[in-house]
Amino acid sequence: MKIGSQAHHSTSISTSNASTILVRGRDLSRELIGQISFTDHFWLLLTGSMPTTAQRRILDATLVAIAEHGLVPSVQASRMTLAAAPEALQGAVAAGILGCGSVVLGSSEVAGHFFAAIAARIAAGAAPNEAATSAILEYRAARRAIPGYGHPLHRGSDPRAGRLFAVAAEVGSAGMHVDIAQLVERLLPDLIGKPLALNVSGAIPAVLLDAGYPLGALKGVPILARTAGLIAHLLEEQLRPIGFVLSYAGGAAIDYDGEAPPDFEPGHE
Amino acid sequence: MKIGSQAHHSTSISTSNASTILVRGRDLSRELIGQISFTDHFWLLLTGSMPTTAQRRILDATLVAIAEHGLVPSVQASRMTLAAAPEALQGAVAAGILGCGSVVLGSSEVAGHFFAAIAARIAAGAAPNEAATSAILEYRAARRAIPGYGHPLHRGSDPRAGRLFAVAAEVGSAGMHVDIAQLVERLLPDLIGKPLALNVSGAIPAVLLDAGYPLGALKGVPILARTAGLIAHLLEEQLRPIGFVLSYAGGAAIDYDGEAPPDFEPGHE
Amino acid sequence: MKIGSQAHHSTSISTSNASTILVRGRDLSRELIGQISFTDHFWLLLTGSMPTTAQRRILDATLVAIAEHGLVPSVQASRMTLAAAPEALQGAVAAGILGCGSVVLGSSEVAGHFFAAIAARIAAGAAPNEAATSAILEYRAARRAIPGYGHPLHRGSDPRAGRLFAVAAEVGSAGMHVDIAQLVERLLPDLIGKPLALNVSGAIPAVLLDAGYPLGALKGVPILARTAGLIAHLLEEQLRPIGFVLSYAGGAAIDYDGEAPPDFEPGHE
Amino acid sequence: MKIGSQAHHSTSISTSNASTILVRGRDLSRELIGQISFTDHFWLLLTGSMPTTAQRRILDATLVAIAEHGLVPSVQASRMTLAAAPEALQGAVAAGILGCGSVVLGSSEVAGHFFAAIAARIAAGAAPNEAATSAILEYRAARRAIPGYGHPLHRGSDPRAGRLFAVAAEVGSAGMHVDIAQLVERLLPDLIGKPLALNVSGAIPAVLLDAGYPLGALKGVPILARTAGLIAHLLEEQLRPIGFVLSYAGGAAIDYDGEAPPDFEPGHE
Repeated sequence: MKIGSQAHHSTSISTSNASTILVRGRDLSRELIGQISFTDHFWLLLTGSMPTTAQRRILDATLVAIAEHGLVPSVQASRMTLAAAPEALQGAVAAGILGCGSVVLGSSEVAGHFFAAIAARIAAGAAPNEAATSAILEYRAARRAIPGYGHPLHRGSDPRAGRLFAVAAEVGSAGMHVDIAQLVERLLPDLIGKPLALNVSGAIPAVLLDAGYPLGALKGVPILARTAGLIAHLLEEQLRPIGFVLSYAGGAAIDYDGEAPPDFEPGHE
Repeated sequence: MKIGSQAHHSTSISTSNASTILVRGRDLSRELIGQISFTDHFWLLLTGSMPTTAQRRILDATLVAIAEHGLVPSVQASRMTLAAAPEALQGAVAAGILGCGSVVLGSSEVAGHFFAAIAARIAAGAAPNEAATSAILEYRAARRAIPGYGHPLHRGSDPRAGRLFAVAAEVGSAGMHVDIAQLVERLLPDLIGKPLALNVSGAIPAVLLDAGYPLGALKGVPILARTAGLIAHLLEEQLRPIGFVLSYAGGAAIDYDGEAPPDFEPGHE
Repeated sequence: MKIGSQAHHSTSISTSNASTILVRGRDLSRELIGQISFTDHFWLLLTGSMPTTAQRRILDATLVAIAEHGLVPSVQASRMTLAAAPEALQGAVAAGILGCGSVVLGSSEVAGHFFAAIAARIAAGAAPNEAATSAILEYRAARRAIPGYGHPLHRGSDPRAGRLFAVAAEVGSAGMHVDIAQLVERLLPDLIGKPLALNVSGAIPAVLLDAGYPLGALKGVPILARTAGLIAHLLEEQLRPIGFVLSYAGGAAIDYDGEAPPDFEPGHE
Repeated sequence: MKIGSQAHHSTSISTSNASTILVRGRDLSRELIGQISFTDHFWLLLTGSMPTTAQRRILDATLVAIAEHGLVPSVQASRMTLAAAPEALQGAVAAGILGCGSVVLGSSEVAGHFFAAIAARIAAGAAPNEAATSAILEYRAARRAIPGYGHPLHRGSDPRAGRLFAVAAEVGSAGMHVDIAQLVERLLPDLIGKPLALNVSGAIPAVLLDAGYPLGALKGVPILARTAGLIAHLLEEQLRPIGFVLSYAGGAAIDYDGEAPPDFEPGHE
């Protein structure tokens, strides 16, 4: 059954014959395998071009930043799915990825659209303060959370956000979206009555958009990164199963027993 | 409800407090973000240690090798899911990942267990030829396909397999599992009556196991790699939708319109 | 990690002890198993009450109407996932369900919210014609499709829609939402310049909302119904596999070979 | 890309043209919608025939039995996925269904194959005691759990199992598979050193196979049934969110506040 009518019945990502696989016009075996990193390949797949050094470092930094944050709900969903269906690792990964929604891990995408909308108003002639203020007030009027600000554990500041901005400054790619993200942070206390620190899901789209990463693939960064973290948890689950025991809001039922600096005080998982 | 009783109620992957996120004992913001590549981070998450240069190059090579191979069924499943549910990119990625099963993308894991079983027999004193021959004959007796050999398009040889072995030789990590994979390829014509070339899903576990990558996470490589490819197709689907048009066995309903060398003859997608 | 703070840490659906499972206050073994139909049980689970005869008939009619419509994209996604991962039927079902999005199968939910919004305007004093007209024009202004109207195959009329309205009339449950659905159908030619017939995804929420089915569970009807259809296709796939052959827009690569009346002219799958 | 070569490029489940949808040779609108129950339709989709009264009652009884058992891990996975991604109910349902694996909900399928193997040995001439004993000992030798026996909460007996057998006796469909299931229960104490009561996932395949339900669709019953339960929990989650609070092994963090008989003593969720 054909639904809708599309203008394009073609793809420009990849094709192949019996002896050669072309990816974005490159011979996969002769030009890519063993020559470029997976991060380079991801950028090439998305954009059709190899990343610059700055683009590679930004993409690596964001993927490293969001890959892992302990036994969060989507990791629990994934581990429990493996315990119930050990025959299908892919199902356990899928169950974890399905939690990359608009509220939790996928909020990078929502924040990216929020910043892009402010950037568009500035490009159309609005003063930055006015553009950001009106965008914030529209979200408030629609009773939507301001995406990319506030974190239940990292209330004062999210250590990943500041570090991502430092990397962007270091490689010289920080630009308008980083400016907008910081401007919004400064405006929030007056506009919503309390300070809310930029979180990792706000910093990721800011530095990626400044680096030329495509807006429509923003959610792909937390999805890809978290897949790596999920696979690590699923390996641990195979080697020494936690099974169906869950952590809970009132205390830590699951302990961390890995390495830690001597002065580290654990919070609650 | 608690099901089963597990000895371990602890994790050694990550923990955090309000100011610090520890991943495998490292401070995520101060020691990892902006300092290491995503491939390094994936290895660290899985094993608790940073990869050597050889390990990093092998892992990168396998991830690049298996990330993309055109509009295969799991990519079609993913694109069509996005067309039906554009509000949930994570659902479209999950639908594609669910096709990483024992038959198609996940066969790296099956092949890895096959090679590991032969390696265990050799370690227990069997001659390599006998160990491989008996393992092959047991699969045949159980009417199971020999995992990691043969490909519907790349019949003569899979260009990715040879390239992965060359990278393993180059970085000096090729070892017993690569030897076993090549031994099996030599034995197959006599034992099953026809030659079957090693494919990418056979080469991946051979080079990864030789590099010290954990057996229980083998399927994680095609899952993580293919996630990158899926996100690229889902970005393309947003920018110029193919929608519900499908390719089919008898010809190419979907064309490739990306770059290609002047002498490239496309096969059927 | 606790995210957000919820007022409710309780459920009213089910609880149990060693000898008894309570579902909505009923003893599952003594009062429900063998006594009520699965459709009754679904209604009870959702609402806490047993359905009336009219409610049961409406819910059965909608579930039967939307369970199956041939080798649509989500069924293809599901079959191909099973072919790739035969070890995990649940993964194949999940891949199919993920295609119940806002555009295709899940449009019952979007249409239900559309009708409910018109009903709310009428309840607030608007004349029906005005309420429906303004709602249609707002969707048009936002470049959104009018949900629940038009079908790529059943252009003149969707035979399931008319039948569902006949059942609602027969059991005496047709009410305001059916009226609104018909009113919108009459208004569309003038407002958008072409006739668009009510489709099954428009008729389902109309008859369900009139019967007292909860708005927030509307998408559950196509999801539950389609799960039944998917399981049938996955059984067929096991017994006589179609595998990775796909149908396509230009013709029927997959034939129907089941029973049919002698005068039936097949369309394209 | 075509993978494998299949003999069948046809389906016998459904086809359609502009005015008619055929399902298993019946006109969906004229013969099925409003005339048959969803349970009838599921049987028809699977088998091509309408169920007898006994078949309908058995299928209804098993679907009712397994639809709901409180906040089990797959329900938690599903609720948390909705909290993270409220835009995609289908993703939350999929995350819950992915937990219908060989260990937990999908064990009906494993138990069905276990009983069918014993039945095949009896059909081939073995005495029932010998057939069952040898099958049990083979599972033990392979360190596999005997599927369909034992339950972490319902240790003495699973109330759903006895009730399903009573329904099978009542409708006159109990046969060889019920006999085998009971025989295994009697043999277990001697063969494995402790009694293990038949659980719901053992009773379901026993009564379904006796009623003529297809072996390859056994896992479809817990999947379809649990989908109904998941949708109820996801509606509750929308109306009064529990969010990311989880129950845990040491006590009940989430209370039941629905109806209950005055003398009901809750166990731990």
